Amino acid sequence: MEDIRSRISVVNSALFPEAQKRLDNLTKPQGSLGRLEEFARRVVAITGNKMPVLDKKVIFTFAGDHGIASEGVSAYPKEVTPQMVFNFLRGGAGINVLARHAGADVVVIDIGVDHDFGDLPGLVSRKVMRGTANMSKGPAMTRQQAEQCIQVGIDLAREYAKKGYRIFGTGDMGIGNTTPSSAIASVLTGTPIKDVTGRGTGITEESLRRKITIIESCIVINRPDPKDPIDVLAKVGGAEIGGIAGLILGAAAERIPVVVDGLISTAGAMIAYDIEPKTADYMFAGHSSVEIGQKVMLRGMGLVPILDLNLRLGEGTGAALAMMMIEAGTKIYREMATFGEAGVSDEIIA
Amino acid sequence: MEDIRSRISVVNSALFPEAQKRLDNLTKPQGSLGRLEEFARRVVAITGNKMPVLDKKVIFTFAGDHGIASEGVSAYPKEVTPQMVFNFLRGGAGINVLARHAGADVVVIDIGVDHDFGDLPGLVSRKVMRGTANMSKGPAMTRQQAEQCIQVGIDLAREYAKKGYRIFGTGDMGIGNTTPSSAIASVLTGTPIKDVTGRGTGITEESLRRKITIIESCIVINRPDPKDPIDVLAKVGGAEIGGIAGLILGAAAERIPVVVDGLISTAGAMIAYDIEPKTADYMFAGHSSVEIGQKVMLRGMGLVPILDLNLRLGEGTGAALAMMMIEAGTKIYREMATFGEAGVSDEIIA
Repeated sequence: MEDIRSRISVVNSALFPEAQKRLDNLTKPQGSLGRLEEFARRVVAITGNKMPVLDKKVIFTFAGDHGIASEGVSAYPKEVTPQMVFNFLRGGAGINVLARHAGADVVVIDIGVDHDFGDLPGLVSRKVMRGTANMSKGPAMTRQQAEQCIQVGIDLAREYAKKGYRIFGTGDMGIGNTTPSSAIASVLTGTPIKDVTGRGTGITEESLRRKITIIESCIVINRPDPKDPIDVLAKVGGAEIGGIAGLILGAAAERIPVVVDGLISTAGAMIAYDIEPKTADYMFAGHSSVEIGQKVMLRGMGLVPILDLNLRLGEGTGAALAMMMIEAGTKIYREMATFGEAGVSDEIIA
Repeated sequence: MEDIRSRISVVNSALFPEAQKRLDNLTKPQGSLGRLEEFARRVVAITGNKMPVLDKKVIFTFAGDHGIASEGVSAYPKEVTPQMVFNFLRGGAGINVLARHAGADVVVIDIGVDHDFGDLPGLVSRKVMRGTANMSKGPAMTRQQAEQCIQVGIDLAREYAKKGYRIFGTGDMGIGNTTPSSAIASVLTGTPIKDVTGRGTGITEESLRRKITIIESCIVINRPDPKDPIDVLAKVGGAEIGGIAGLILGAAAERIPVVVDGLISTAGAMIAYDIEPKTADYMFAGHSSVEIGQKVMLRGMGLVPILDLNLRLGEGTGAALAMMMIEAGTKIYREMATFGEAGVSDEIIA
């Protein structure tokens, strides 16, 4: 893994007051567009562009399989991961519909699916492994593989920045992947497993209890070092989670705002954050997931979710929806008339 | 005012399970798109259309002036109302930017501005009065005027339904109009004035205290009858609030979903609801306003806001943003592949 940290700067916070000055001069009471104004200020500071445009948007949906799925931690069989990849490429999945609605492209990456897709048109093939190992028996992957996964994300960020994309969203597909995500949440935030573990795709109460027990044994067996995020990713993580972490590190290096989706994406974000905390200033938390582990990690990174619509699908769906709100903020910033232009009084009388 | 109540039916709740059946057969865990699924079900039941499309969207921004503005209840002088109408028509206001972003048209209605616009291209002139009377001295308007304002909204709903619009949003412009809105909230929900009154466009702490005292005297002097919503509208309301109430009644009669914006729109919605409670089933609460009176009224109508972005601008801005989420729900419903179509396993194993 390249030394990404040296390529990540702090955002240009000197631009915050300048951006707010423009916002305050638009034909509305000061601050009355609330978080839309925050989004605009942040995009200005992230990009360093005083008149940013978010015209080219893309969601990266990273797909990977999980050895732990054989322990019955998901409501669905693991064959669903490749089946959903085909669904993404045909445009029939939730993320396809919502990305079209948001005017964003979808890039589907095979980073670790346990299926040989061959040379499948539309699929970005960056396979690091065919599924992780069963982490209840030993590490999910080697440290080298974890670093490879992160590098895949970093490379994609650079490639899509060069293609002119202005905002990224993260997404995931991988049957079983709420299990490593909750494990990461527990290890990196020091929170009890039961407080960061939910029902994923919709398992029963009994399966949830088993899932918690399994995560406990994964952590006991592998002893991931909470001070070493790559160790945590390797031992109790997943390929798509590593890809997402890399994408976020890469986005920060390229000064591109990145919208983080739900639990799995937030686990990736937390890995990126623990590698380089400056990344948090480049992230937007797309939504508050039904999965309880996500809130704990968002709090740890100081991020406040944009939407709260009881979503728990993943794929990048919450990121696509939130992108529309962030773009709304930048359009307000760019397109609204000032008091002077509109001939509207800005006299404050009470 | 025509007998609108007889034209409003209950929504077709028999379609809820049918719509949910389709949603459950799409390639995602059941219920995993949370409120987007709720929006889709509700649009199906409201329209009675099993495959609804929300392609033609419109925000109605009703503008009116308020005699009470002369008491210093707003941070801005009342000349700002007509100035903002000109801004709307030139496309430079917040609602213009956000409606363009959402793909919605904006219809600007002069229902009670204290300014003679003459024959101004783009402005829908339905003036009932040149500003309301100062309601701290007597009723804001006559009962007949209140009914006329409601009829303006009903007529617009019918006209735009005929033009093929599929979803409406409400909006307002009127310096001073959080004051009548808080008065309506207090009277119709039986809540103390201080618990429904906020800073509007951004008045000082001292002005807020005066605003509360003024609302108290408005209610004492006029004695609006909480059992008679038209009496409340006439005595402590405003022209644009009446127009919004009428638009919502008309939307329900036309079986068109209507997205309610912030405090002022919600006051209009509450008037409509108290005239005919069935209207609530046609409403979507666009967002949770910074203005505290709105939450109380939404609770009274059983509505849960879609967005929470600290907005307090009005004009229909929150409705425009929320429309994108409702449309997202209907697109999910229409465009996602089913398990069968996509060849994805829907076998539940845990």
